[in-house]
Amino acid sequence: MPDFKVVARSSETQARAAELSTLHGPVATPVFMPVGTQGTVKALIPEELEALGARIILGNTYHLYLRPGMEVIRRFDGLHGFMGWRGPILTDSGGFQVFSLAALRRVTEEGVAFQSHIDGSRHLLTPELATEVQLTLGSDILMCLDQCVAFPAAPEDLRRALDLTTRWAARCRQTWEAHDGPKGALFGIVQGGMDPALRAASVGQLRALDFPGYALGGLSVGEPPPVMYATAAATLPLLPDDRPRYIMGVGTPDDLVALVARGADMFDCVMPTRNARNGQFFTPAGTLNIRNARFRQDTSPVDPACDCYTCRRFSRAYLRHLFIARELLAYRLASIHNLRYYVRLLAAMRRAILDDRFAEFQRAFQARRQPLPAAQAPVGAMPEPADPTASG
Amino acid sequence: MPDFKVVARSSETQARAAELSTLHGPVATPVFMPVGTQGTVKALIPEELEALGARIILGNTYHLYLRPGMEVIRRFDGLHGFMGWRGPILTDSGGFQVFSLAALRRVTEEGVAFQSHIDGSRHLLTPELATEVQLTLGSDILMCLDQCVAFPAAPEDLRRALDLTTRWAARCRQTWEAHDGPKGALFGIVQGGMDPALRAASVGQLRALDFPGYALGGLSVGEPPPVMYATAAATLPLLPDDRPRYIMGVGTPDDLVALVARGADMFDCVMPTRNARNGQFFTPAGTLNIRNARFRQDTSPVDPACDCYTCRRFSRAYLRHLFIARELLAYRLASIHNLRYYVRLLAAMRRAILDDRFAEFQRAFQARRQPLPAAQAPVGAMPEPADPTASG
Repeated sequence: MPDFKVVARSSETQARAAELSTLHGPVATPVFMPVGTQGTVKALIPEELEALGARIILGNTYHLYLRPGMEVIRRFDGLHGFMGWRGPILTDSGGFQVFSLAALRRVTEEGVAFQSHIDGSRHLLTPELATEVQLTLGSDILMCLDQCVAFPAAPEDLRRALDLTTRWAARCRQTWEAHDGPKGALFGIVQGGMDPALRAASVGQLRALDFPGYALGGLSVGEPPPVMYATAAATLPLLPDDRPRYIMGVGTPDDLVALVARGADMFDCVMPTRNARNGQFFTPAGTLNIRNARFRQDTSPVDPACDCYTCRRFSRAYLRHLFIARELLAYRLASIHNLRYYVRLLAAMRRAILDDRFAEFQRAFQARRQPLPAAQAPVGAMPEPADPTASG
Repeated sequence: MPDFKVVARSSETQARAAELSTLHGPVATPVFMPVGTQGTVKALIPEELEALGARIILGNTYHLYLRPGMEVIRRFDGLHGFMGWRGPILTDSGGFQVFSLAALRRVTEEGVAFQSHIDGSRHLLTPELATEVQLTLGSDILMCLDQCVAFPAAPEDLRRALDLTTRWAARCRQTWEAHDGPKGALFGIVQGGMDPALRAASVGQLRALDFPGYALGGLSVGEPPPVMYATAAATLPLLPDDRPRYIMGVGTPDDLVALVARGADMFDCVMPTRNARNGQFFTPAGTLNIRNARFRQDTSPVDPACDCYTCRRFSRAYLRHLFIARELLAYRLASIHNLRYYVRLLAAMRRAILDDRFAEFQRAFQARRQPLPAAQAPVGAMPEPADPTASG
């Protein structure tokens, strides 16, 4: 059971600041966790993550299970040794990516059978296996295997999925409980779509199993932000106050502020790193697309007020050049900036909670923002990256 | 005129150690210059280059002239300010890349007309323009525009090209001489193919123009290494002893040792960085292809004796995983290792010259090497890199 201590509360909102202990040190919340899918936060070294203030990162069980595989991970006594990251790691259960990446998925009571997206090999992911893999990875926070359903879904499908999720959660908990030796904390995942009653049912079932922490799954799956916020607002207060609350796969800077206000503690999302690789830089005023011709001769940094390595050292014109020339350095420098932006945003929220001026912070944050462009630069529309194996 | 001082000579070979002064500080030779084609040594930041011991890097005039263009570079007072590199920069004249990359080249007395490989735009690269562009870039060492001919070439074609190269060199020198204010050193480029008589003629013509330094162009263009070494051995002694001697676009570690023994001071080559991006790691025993299945569970570093960041922090198994998963970090970590290997090799040669044990060093170097694999992993044969814009 991780030690989780709420240290401050916002008097006007549900926002709270806390300290979470893990096997690899403490984490101050609210916190954003950069995504390191395949044992690397894309393009960055551990020292860069530390320097930009990341304290806990996320690894993806589905990817790591398939490649490099647990035989390799065991040689390094877990993911920390393999990838050289010294801080805490949260791993998902693999379920979400089985549902989004793998072929020929078939869900039974036992688990989910699928074919690898890499080589077509057949696998059966059970709650027991998902837990064992995460124990082998040495995760500081393990997630229960859950069934994700597409949005929108019929109430009976949502109900069936959340009931199965609870039965799987019980089996995950059993496997986790039976494991000898040091182990991370296991979080239960609340499902139930956008239906408050189903969410409440899911919370009730999971609370009966008494998890060290709880997550909301199945958000940011295509619903409008107000619907997501309403779902979180209805569900988060039902969770035990003395346990961390993690909202999976979310979100935009606006989402994070809105959800911290509703009592969420932890977040992960590919957005800062994925958008970085598309040339989109986050700033307090909104997103800046560095490929825009107006930056061609711009000697100023992306955000003059930003303290990240990229903004301290390089100009918009240089970054634009790297993106236009499809240079590998572009992806790295943009990732550093965007992750630093997210880390700083969460740190500012925490500071505001500690000072009990979160509501004021939230108003100021919203006032500074221009709306995000509707088209978030869909990946398929971007030019192909340069071939890293090319000459020069 | 740069200050160039030979500080030690090998008594058994032609190897020499020297100190070269530039606008951006001193360079100890023999020296290897990492290639930063488009204003970035691919995947690396300036601090990493400094940390691995690189003291001078190369930029490509052809690329930078086309993109971002001199209008942008002027806003930064040159390439140093644009890319954030504080040390010396050598730039080529653009000639070699016009001949290897551009379309519809046409050589006249005036210069070389070509179409950009990027957008098909038409340009005329004259000796005057090549020099002015390099002055705008603020290069510490500028290269004369030369005419490169394919290997093998007929003697009359080689002769015509070297005579034109001399006339162009005189025009470059005139433009350079006329430039007011601080400026880098201008090097002449010796042509003449593999024919010692033609090389001698080229040297004679260029010496009459009295350049601050001299380069051998037209080597490593497909000839067998012994032919390249023989050409260098016949040509280098004809150059003035008190000027730096640069061999362009060369080469393998074996080439560098062989050519330092023959009196060369400076080198550049894409090999360490390009091969890095193909998963080939240089070691004292030869090249290691990290994708090989035998490294799958290998917890040791690429080279246990190597002091580079990559070898101090990561295992062969992790690096193999990054390459197999086509992660961006792979190219960066491999580039750091290979450049550090090159820098260390040159530093070891310099040390051996200072101690007058270069011949012994050369024998020991050769004794440790296994032959390089015949196939140097042609770029076209490698798997496609992952899409940096992909999710995750």
